[in-house]
Amino acid sequence: MTVRELGLPVTATAPGLPDRVTIWEVGPRDGLQNEDTVVPVDVKLEFIDRLADAGLTTIEATSFVHPKWVPQLADAEDLLARLSTRDGVAYPVLVPNERGLDRALAAGIRHIAIFASATETFANRNLNRTRDSQLTMFEPVVTRAVAEGLDVRGYVSMSFGDPWEGAVDPAAVVSVGRRLLDMGISQLSLGDTIGVATAGQVSALLGAFAEAGTSVDHLAVHFHDTYGQALTNTLEALRHGVTTVDSSAGGLGGCPYAESATGNLATEDLVWLLDGLGVSTGVDLDSLADTSAWMAERLGRPSPSRVVRALRG
Amino acid sequence: MTVRELGLPVTATAPGLPDRVTIWEVGPRDGLQNEDTVVPVDVKLEFIDRLADAGLTTIEATSFVHPKWVPQLADAEDLLARLSTRDGVAYPVLVPNERGLDRALAAGIRHIAIFASATETFANRNLNRTRDSQLTMFEPVVTRAVAEGLDVRGYVSMSFGDPWEGAVDPAAVVSVGRRLLDMGISQLSLGDTIGVATAGQVSALLGAFAEAGTSVDHLAVHFHDTYGQALTNTLEALRHGVTTVDSSAGGLGGCPYAESATGNLATEDLVWLLDGLGVSTGVDLDSLADTSAWMAERLGRPSPSRVVRALRG
Repeated sequence: MTVRELGLPVTATAPGLPDRVTIWEVGPRDGLQNEDTVVPVDVKLEFIDRLADAGLTTIEATSFVHPKWVPQLADAEDLLARLSTRDGVAYPVLVPNERGLDRALAAGIRHIAIFASATETFANRNLNRTRDSQLTMFEPVVTRAVAEGLDVRGYVSMSFGDPWEGAVDPAAVVSVGRRLLDMGISQLSLGDTIGVATAGQVSALLGAFAEAGTSVDHLAVHFHDTYGQALTNTLEALRHGVTTVDSSAGGLGGCPYAESATGNLATEDLVWLLDGLGVSTGVDLDSLADTSAWMAERLGRPSPSRVVRALRG
Repeated sequence: MTVRELGLPVTATAPGLPDRVTIWEVGPRDGLQNEDTVVPVDVKLEFIDRLADAGLTTIEATSFVHPKWVPQLADAEDLLARLSTRDGVAYPVLVPNERGLDRALAAGIRHIAIFASATETFANRNLNRTRDSQLTMFEPVVTRAVAEGLDVRGYVSMSFGDPWEGAVDPAAVVSVGRRLLDMGISQLSLGDTIGVATAGQVSALLGAFAEAGTSVDHLAVHFHDTYGQALTNTLEALRHGVTTVDSSAGGLGGCPYAESATGNLATEDLVWLLDGLGVSTGVDLDSLADTSAWMAERLGRPSPSRVVRALRG
C-alpha cells in the first residue's frame, strides 16, 4: 500500500482559509527558463497538455523575452502555433515590451503578464530602467493590451527582499503595485524573487495593500524556496484571503544538485498542503506527480519537489 | 554583500507566537543514525561542541540502542566519556530499555528519552510489542529514571500518519501520550515520522491534547520534511503555544541525492523563520550554517538544508 492508497494526506480543515485556490502554474515559463537544459518544443507541448490533464486551469506557457536573454524559450512562436488549447484553461504569456505584445496579439494570446521590479536596483539590472521609468515603459503595453480586451497580470519582483538593497519597504511595493493596477492590470503577483521572506513579512505586505484600499482579489503570491520558506509564506497569504498562488510543477527551475536551490515552490508540495487542509484546487496530485517525474527524466535529474521524490522517486 | 550582511531575513513579527522557542537539536542522534556514513567519534565530538558554540542548549547526543540496529551510534559510551559538557546545555540520550538506562546512569547522563509508537503496527514492527505492551515495557524504565532524578522525554512516533495504517486518530496519540506523562515523563515529542502531516492535523492533535487537559508546556513537535510540510507544521504548532521544536542541524538524516528526502526539519531553515518572526532562539545562524557545511563535507555530500545550501553552497 502506498501512502496515497492509504488516504494520505489526511484531510483536516483549519479556520480562516478559502474554500478554493487557483494555482497559477509557472513551470513551462518560469520553471523551464531557469533550467540549464533546453527542452524540445514537442516535450513542452506534451508537458503543457499533461498539466491541463492533471486539472491545472492557468498554465503560463512561454515568454516573448528576446532569445538572447532566454534561449530556453526561443521557440515561443512555434509552441503557441502548435498548442492545442482547451476551454476553461488559460495559457498566459509573458511579454516584456510593445514588440512582445505585437507577437502575443499575432499569436492570438488572450492573457499576458508583464514583469516589473519593486526595487530601483533590480529595475536597473533587469530592465536598465529606473523604478519609475519601467512603469512609463509598461504603460503603453498595458493600455493597448487592455484596449484589445486582453487580461494583464503584473509580476512585482523583489517584493520582500533584494540582493543589493536588502529589506524592501512594503510602501514601495504598494506604490508600484497600485500604479500597475491603475493602468488596468487585473492581478498583481507579489514575488519573493530571492526567497528570503518569512511569514511576518507576508502578513505586513498584504496588510499594507489592504490599508491602501487594494482588494485582496487583485493579489496573487509567488514564493521561491531558496531558504525553505515558500510553503509557510503561502499558507500565511491564504490566511489573508489570497486565492491565487503561483507554483511550478515538480519545482522546475530549481536544481536539487545545484549549490543553491533557488526554485519556485513545487506545485505538488502546495497541492499536498491544500489537499490536507481540504482546500479545493481541482488538481489530481498523482497525475501531476507522474507528469513531473516524466519531465525530470527529460531533464536528466531528480525533481526538487519533495512530494514528487517521495511519491515517484 | 551577502544577504546576511544586508540584514536578511527582515524581522517582521506576527501575533500569537511565543517570544522564545527552545530548539531540541537531534542532529547527532536522529540525524547521524539515519546517514549511510558512519562518522568517527572525534568528528561527532567536534560537531556537538560546535552546536553548543552556535547557541544550541539541548543537543541529543547519542543513543543506547543496540549497535546491531544502529551501527552509526555504536560508539555511544566512548562519545559520552569524552564529551566536554557545559553549564546550561543539556545532552539527552535515547534509551530503549532498562539495559539502556543502566548504561545511561553509568555514563552520568541526566536527561534521557524513550521512543514509543502511537500505532499498533509500528509498535509491532519497531519494538515487537503491542501498543499497550510497549508502555508496560517503558514503565519500569521511566519510574526508575525519575526516581534517580533524571529528566525523561517521550517520543511519540507516527503521531499523524502511519505507513501501514494511514490516518492516525488523535485520540490514540493522546491516550499513549497521557500514559507516558502519568509515568513521570516531562515532555512528549509528537513525531510525524513519515512526514505526511499538514497544518490542520497539527491543529487537531494539539487541540485534542488541550481538551484532554494536557498543558502545551509538556508538548514538543518533531516534523520530517518528506512531503515538504515540516516548517509549515512547525509554525502551526507555535501558534498553538508549543515552545519546544525538534530539528536537525543541516537537515542531517535526509540525503539530497536519495530518491526520497525523509529527513528531519533542518535547524537552519527553522532559525531563518524564527529570526524573521522575531522569535528568539539563542542560535547564531551563521555559526550554525558553518558547522553544517563542515559536517556535509565530512559526509561527502551537500546539506539538504535549503538555508545551508543558499548561504554556504
